[in-house]
Amino acid sequence: MTAVNVGIIGLGNVGGGTLEILTGNAAAIEARLGFPLRVRAISSRSVLQAPPAAAAALPADVRRSTDWRDVVDDPEIQIVAELIGGTSVAAEVIEAAIAAGKSVVTANKELMAQRGAELWAAAARAGVSLAMEATVAGGIPIHAVLREGIAGDRVQSMVGILNGTCNYILTEMERRGDSFETVLAEAQALGYAEADPSADVDGLDARSKLALLAALAFGTRIRPAEIHVEGIRRVRSVDFSYARRLGQTVRLIGSAERVGDDGLLLSVQPALIPEGAILAHVQGAYNAVWVRGAWGQDTFYYGRGAGPAPTGVAVVSDLIRAARELRAGAAGALSPFAHTTLAEESPRSIRERIRPWYLRFRVRDQPGIIAALAAILAQSGIGIDAVLQLPGEEKADLPFVITLEPTATGVVQDAVATMGRLDFLVDEPLVLPMEAGLGTGA
Amino acid sequence: MTAVNVGIIGLGNVGGGTLEILTGNAAAIEARLGFPLRVRAISSRSVLQAPPAAAAALPADVRRSTDWRDVVDDPEIQIVAELIGGTSVAAEVIEAAIAAGKSVVTANKELMAQRGAELWAAAARAGVSLAMEATVAGGIPIHAVLREGIAGDRVQSMVGILNGTCNYILTEMERRGDSFETVLAEAQALGYAEADPSADVDGLDARSKLALLAALAFGTRIRPAEIHVEGIRRVRSVDFSYARRLGQTVRLIGSAERVGDDGLLLSVQPALIPEGAILAHVQGAYNAVWVRGAWGQDTFYYGRGAGPAPTGVAVVSDLIRAARELRAGAAGALSPFAHTTLAEESPRSIRERIRPWYLRFRVRDQPGIIAALAAILAQSGIGIDAVLQLPGEEKADLPFVITLEPTATGVVQDAVATMGRLDFLVDEPLVLPMEAGLGTGA
Repeated sequence: MTAVNVGIIGLGNVGGGTLEILTGNAAAIEARLGFPLRVRAISSRSVLQAPPAAAAALPADVRRSTDWRDVVDDPEIQIVAELIGGTSVAAEVIEAAIAAGKSVVTANKELMAQRGAELWAAAARAGVSLAMEATVAGGIPIHAVLREGIAGDRVQSMVGILNGTCNYILTEMERRGDSFETVLAEAQALGYAEADPSADVDGLDARSKLALLAALAFGTRIRPAEIHVEGIRRVRSVDFSYARRLGQTVRLIGSAERVGDDGLLLSVQPALIPEGAILAHVQGAYNAVWVRGAWGQDTFYYGRGAGPAPTGVAVVSDLIRAARELRAGAAGALSPFAHTTLAEESPRSIRERIRPWYLRFRVRDQPGIIAALAAILAQSGIGIDAVLQLPGEEKADLPFVITLEPTATGVVQDAVATMGRLDFLVDEPLVLPMEAGLGTGA
Repeated sequence: MTAVNVGIIGLGNVGGGTLEILTGNAAAIEARLGFPLRVRAISSRSVLQAPPAAAAALPADVRRSTDWRDVVDDPEIQIVAELIGGTSVAAEVIEAAIAAGKSVVTANKELMAQRGAELWAAAARAGVSLAMEATVAGGIPIHAVLREGIAGDRVQSMVGILNGTCNYILTEMERRGDSFETVLAEAQALGYAEADPSADVDGLDARSKLALLAALAFGTRIRPAEIHVEGIRRVRSVDFSYARRLGQTVRLIGSAERVGDDGLLLSVQPALIPEGAILAHVQGAYNAVWVRGAWGQDTFYYGRGAGPAPTGVAVVSDLIRAARELRAGAAGALSPFAHTTLAEESPRSIRERIRPWYLRFRVRDQPGIIAALAAILAQSGIGIDAVLQLPGEEKADLPFVITLEPTATGVVQDAVATMGRLDFLVDEPLVLPMEAGLGTGA
């Protein structure tokens, strides 16, 4: 049977990985589809001077251009893979491809989190497919899971480790006892973290992914900027020592849950999770998502968060689906958001979310500290669960921990704001929720 | 938009769960599809006298019949869910539905493992969809994952906990130190195990599931009877004690791996797995599948193995997909086996598979036992890794363990057969492979 023709725009890490798989796995892909999937055009700024190995190995008649429009305008091309990233040119590429009647596969999480609903509306109108498996947790097919695998369920909550860089930094801090700054510098030297690490360590990358997962699971359009976010810069190695004493560890957790009939609580923040939870076993640059459904109950998904090959698998899997839909005359039938349209919705304030809490203080040691802090907590009606102090700390900058009974976030935030004025504090308290119910499989 | 009409045949656990979800989650399903999915006919032997609650609650104009042909022949019905199980009537139902031009969703693992390739060929010829997410690991959408989510990858190996009853029995034996017989009897009393437990505890259920997963992952048709199978009846509580001493635990493991270019090694058997592996954290009636891909590397999937609601989610998710395909005019475009056709293939003999081994003996204590066993192992060229004997055991039936360096299965089997003649053995040795490389996420 004749091939379906693909054009690849962007030949960086993901584009290179995608090409390598399309070439190296061509026979298996044809066995799945019943027809070949053929790369007929590629484009990147450096494709003529310095193409990646998989691009250089393509047949001579494959169109190579530094101008993405040559790919989009090529009448032979049926599916365009947008793998350049960023939100301006990438949006132009996708819009132009849709306007030209081509299906689109993208790995662009920022763009899809910000403008995906509009792009999907345009694709649906044009009768072309739009797919984005690679946008969240590269190696984990969480889109396919939420869009199709458990489409019949009603998701009640999701908890994920969605940023591999943060998980690498936190698990290395835990394993070696090193500081955030030390591990970050090393991760940057190794290429695991960007020179400007903000998108990762401040939680912004995880926030875009959580917005996309929320759309898939709940059918609602959530703007990333509306999601509460805290990064991992303030986590210190001593927090792992205290967490371990509590049978817990610290991870950057993206969390989404339904409250009541139509409310959603969403956050990205470092949190304590039980050492026995499967999520606590997610080490290094791996990602994972825990899903609780009304009927399917708990399911858990784990894999590489990024990397050219795992993300390339996601892109190629989308290309396979888009090609099948095209050949079956069903392009545009399946929303990448798993819902034909997304309802506009703002998440509720997390001030109403109730959790147990971990408060880590740094103080100049003097009499009366516990009394002062306990008085503020008592005034706010907050119950103390435990006060912990590990031995052998420096008196001028002494860490200790108070854990709290389940309390609404807003109540804790207000109490901690009041504490901010106490003169024995060396630094703002670190306030981490304690996430339970993440399942040990028991 | 007008509804797609569904007929449900079989209203046992899975049928009841399916109906409950179709009713309780109808609005969310419509939001996904853009049109309603409506139950228009149901059938079971007792539907008139003793319908399940969700069936009794259906509108009066829903057709109810004790004859499945009334559902299949109803011209209004577009998709038939075959949920009666077994392999004779169920096959008739599916064949009749396909012949009547209806798409089919089934939860029937035995039938699909035995005759799925033919049924799919018939469905493809008739241009109808055939879907079977519920056949393996009920709550885990592993079909969607292998069929679409990681379709672009080349699976190298899979390791799964595929039978919840066995996993419940083994994890309870481990937790409480009770015997297989005690825990099985209790599981039967609680309804977790059948009165005739053979399909579960002898590994036959897991074997059918492994055959289906192998088809999805490798595109090959494997007959379940050709897969090496050993059940869990011979595992004793002392094995958990020895395993723990080795940093391991015991689980019933379904394993599939590529060898060379076109060979497959498949088995279902109890095995030692590292306590630190994520699979070891799968407790109770949960299932899990570990997949290693050539490009996507390691991914892991976990959830409920069975139960009306989790399996119902799988059926409803398939119904959603079948309805979408039908409405898009693309019914029959997607193989339930992820490959347009399956290649006939026999698995290779596991005699060539190399593993480290755990040999547990029960002996009448006397001098020279280790020497006699060591001599046989030495004659076979097998290296001993360790000899372990926990204290305080009875001398007339003394358990002890020898672990072996990595050795081909056939070599170990032959050596153990030779040992069978030794008169100090109270029972045949228990021979378990030790599975490594199951990932801790590190």
